[in-house]
Amino acid sequence: MAAVSSDINMVRVTNEEFVKKARDCEPVLLEKTVYPSHIVKIEKNGKTYPDVSVTGTPEDLPDHHMKKGDSICMDFGDHQVGYVTLKLASTGSPQDSPAYFRLKFGEIAKEMTEVSEEYDGWISRGWIQEEFIHVDVLPAVVVLPRRYAFRYLEILAIDTSPKWQLVVEEVSCRSVSAVDMESVLPVNTEDELLRRMDQVSLRTLQNCMQSVFEDGPKRDRRLWIGDLRLQALANYETFKNYDLVKRCLYLFAGLTRDDGRVGACLFIEPEYIVDDTFLFDYSLFFAPILLDYYEETGDKETLKELWPCAYRQIELLKGMFDENNLMVCAEGFWCFIDWTEGLDKQAAAQAVYIYCARRAAKIAGILEELDKVKELEKEIGDKVRASLEYLWDENTGLFTSGSSRQISYASQVWMILAEVVDQEKGRAVLKELERRKPEKGMVSPYMNHHFTEAMIQCGMKEEALEYMKYYWGGMIRLGADTFWELYNPENPAESPYGSSIVNSYCHAWSCTPTYLLRKYFLS
Amino acid sequence: MAAVSSDINMVRVTNEEFVKKARDCEPVLLEKTVYPSHIVKIEKNGKTYPDVSVTGTPEDLPDHHMKKGDSICMDFGDHQVGYVTLKLASTGSPQDSPAYFRLKFGEIAKEMTEVSEEYDGWISRGWIQEEFIHVDVLPAVVVLPRRYAFRYLEILAIDTSPKWQLVVEEVSCRSVSAVDMESVLPVNTEDELLRRMDQVSLRTLQNCMQSVFEDGPKRDRRLWIGDLRLQALANYETFKNYDLVKRCLYLFAGLTRDDGRVGACLFIEPEYIVDDTFLFDYSLFFAPILLDYYEETGDKETLKELWPCAYRQIELLKGMFDENNLMVCAEGFWCFIDWTEGLDKQAAAQAVYIYCARRAAKIAGILEELDKVKELEKEIGDKVRASLEYLWDENTGLFTSGSSRQISYASQVWMILAEVVDQEKGRAVLKELERRKPEKGMVSPYMNHHFTEAMIQCGMKEEALEYMKYYWGGMIRLGADTFWELYNPENPAESPYGSSIVNSYCHAWSCTPTYLLRKYFLS
Repeated sequence: MAAVSSDINMVRVTNEEFVKKARDCEPVLLEKTVYPSHIVKIEKNGKTYPDVSVTGTPEDLPDHHMKKGDSICMDFGDHQVGYVTLKLASTGSPQDSPAYFRLKFGEIAKEMTEVSEEYDGWISRGWIQEEFIHVDVLPAVVVLPRRYAFRYLEILAIDTSPKWQLVVEEVSCRSVSAVDMESVLPVNTEDELLRRMDQVSLRTLQNCMQSVFEDGPKRDRRLWIGDLRLQALANYETFKNYDLVKRCLYLFAGLTRDDGRVGACLFIEPEYIVDDTFLFDYSLFFAPILLDYYEETGDKETLKELWPCAYRQIELLKGMFDENNLMVCAEGFWCFIDWTEGLDKQAAAQAVYIYCARRAAKIAGILEELDKVKELEKEIGDKVRASLEYLWDENTGLFTSGSSRQISYASQVWMILAEVVDQEKGRAVLKELERRKPEKGMVSPYMNHHFTEAMIQCGMKEEALEYMKYYWGGMIRLGADTFWELYNPENPAESPYGSSIVNSYCHAWSCTPTYLLRKYFLS
Repeated sequence: MAAVSSDINMVRVTNEEFVKKARDCEPVLLEKTVYPSHIVKIEKNGKTYPDVSVTGTPEDLPDHHMKKGDSICMDFGDHQVGYVTLKLASTGSPQDSPAYFRLKFGEIAKEMTEVSEEYDGWISRGWIQEEFIHVDVLPAVVVLPRRYAFRYLEILAIDTSPKWQLVVEEVSCRSVSAVDMESVLPVNTEDELLRRMDQVSLRTLQNCMQSVFEDGPKRDRRLWIGDLRLQALANYETFKNYDLVKRCLYLFAGLTRDDGRVGACLFIEPEYIVDDTFLFDYSLFFAPILLDYYEETGDKETLKELWPCAYRQIELLKGMFDENNLMVCAEGFWCFIDWTEGLDKQAAAQAVYIYCARRAAKIAGILEELDKVKELEKEIGDKVRASLEYLWDENTGLFTSGSSRQISYASQVWMILAEVVDQEKGRAVLKELERRKPEKGMVSPYMNHHFTEAMIQCGMKEEALEYMKYYWGGMIRLGADTFWELYNPENPAESPYGSSIVNSYCHAWSCTPTYLLRKYFLS
């Protein structure tokens, strides 16, 4: 899967005024010092037990004298994003060699059992949360400069000397986030699984809410626009940090390609800079995010100021259709939709365009730009008609995609969300989908979210709730404290990166159960 | 080889006044910023070539874009002891993963080719000068907190990402020492080898002269008293930093076991503390070091103040002889002499005792403590007579050691240095030694130094110079910039640690050619 689509020669333009507005909305991070709650042993399968070889609780850590090869695994009780400090000492004879130890951080227990030397995936092994550290003189307070995302932290004494042992006197984590869990009331339900699902969603969202809405605090700290859309929706139902959404909108609008195209993601360090990756669906999502923000906040000034940027994406991408108003598929990684290998994205992309154009038209209406409303409505009508004429298959009662007329979940889901079919027809599509179970399924929680939303949109609330219990509930049954970047109920170890050791287990696009539960089911 | 002799329950006593005097003599380290002079490739055998794959000189470093697996090896032109700073940047798309790189420092070229994962020796692998570093945000100035001893520094890009490459913009080393090479004139000779031998000695000594006389700046930064003796002698002929010797004498005398026994070594961090290792010869050497210091400086106050400590070592260790005035050998690592495996140390230890008692007697004479002079002269007489009666073997014309009557270099050398035999007999012993070449040879430059001194003492100056050219000259022929902890001309890769990767290549006890040349040969 070609996951890199770079326009390395792109020319960037900056709207300084927009960037200033983004800067003004930068959050002051809240901090909380957290200590390990248990010392644990983790089995190869990820099963976790109290470590009986050491004296019980973290308070007794200093009694444990670590010689060459000894290790201690600390459990911080919940997923943390933060900065770790170790207080170390030595015992025995004077320290006649450097302390040399490995730190290994894991978001989930199973991650702690993976052997990083064996990693051979295609994304950087630099993402493996592991440090090799020498300390020449003990006692020492080691303040690690990097931020980690983890629940478990293992310290392995790679070597001491025959004459002295390493002592871990105290370990703490300064956990950071733009928001506070205590500011959100739990959902009102007796159903333990739903309560937990909400909490895990909230924690996921909280730990991704940093200087921007991050994608995943372990591995990809960038701001991705596809994820931002879902995070913003979950945030509106929970933390209600509107400034963070505003900041992100202004960042995307303020840092574009010279033709005004919004990037798929952007970096905030060492300076604000938009990446050279562009995705069809991600650029288009600017309009829905802007509309959602306006509908939640009533902030018309922002709506007005950023509307040209939203419209510009449609303007730039409407050229990707042929004379029959059908999406022309580009080579490679041009549109995200889902990680499903071999997925034909024509139909889903066509639907995403319609979905976004509908929202753009709504903004134009609010701003009383009637020419644009008209233009966009024609655009929507043309694309809907083409979808029904060329992609709808009467025989199967499903949408097809591409020249191979591939049938996938993604195509059906996005055609429903784009309202290409009405509620009743949508319901029939989803039922046929369930019966047929096409080979091209869904990999990411992102796609599963849209599947769930499609069910809700078709009035299948009961089925949607069951599906949530099956899908996100499945991660909870596997011990998730935060929801994962990837989860395939039929193969939980699956990774698009060649190894699950670099998977992210606290990931923006997985945080939506709290949104779905609070918006559609509970209050 | 049991190289650990710990008295872990020892009670330490501190003479605060002495420690204060040591503290008052603490040097202010001189600093010099050094940059790499070349980019090189090093072959498995240690042969070094200019690296033609990169653009020549270090000034062109920024033009080299390092992707996953790329490495650059920098040559700093000479052995450095110091603190390294790296200026790093990225090129290509924005940096979408941490920079993950390995730094490898080597004192000699061959060290750079060794594979640290294969190290399986008995001393701590923490000594291998290697760091694994993640940098999340580039550009960055990475100021490494540890001190390294090296000439070569390799940077290996373990991983970047397919989208960006690592750029090393500048690397510098803040080299430190208590003394300055420029303060010493070169030796007056046309012999290129001797000039080089002197320079390499000086650099060795300089790089070991830090807050104390270190043993080896790479691996063992402690102050060892056996090494101190030779360093002080070399220092008197060159840098003439008397305060550093005074500081070390006061440290040993101020930090002892509760019975007044001087330790074999001591640490200065995290606080001044004497180690729990005790060696027969090393404790006794306090007296010769004190006498040498006095003879060089005329500092009678120090002589007087530290004399009780010197005398106390003799007092404590005279109990190690039997009723025949013969050394009783203890188990294990009780006396250093040399690393030679299976070396019987009885004769050499007996001789070291005599050697040290002679110097103690001389101090007693200077201080007009006539009772002690008398007592020590009796002690010397008894031990010399016992050596000749029981250890001298008329048949071979050599000294034997232990119940197996082992013949070794060490026994002969120390009996000569202790003046148990006169010059003429000593010469015969050395000639017989050369003819016989006993199996128990010499491993350390420390032992080779004493062998050379024994030759000089016996009037064999020419042979001594030839030997120096053979022995220390051998290291120079192998490319040494500083003299090594260990060098066996017949097996240069030998290590007492199970692997040469942890050998120290700038080592205190190897610095003596400058002393020998300047004192006995050149001026």
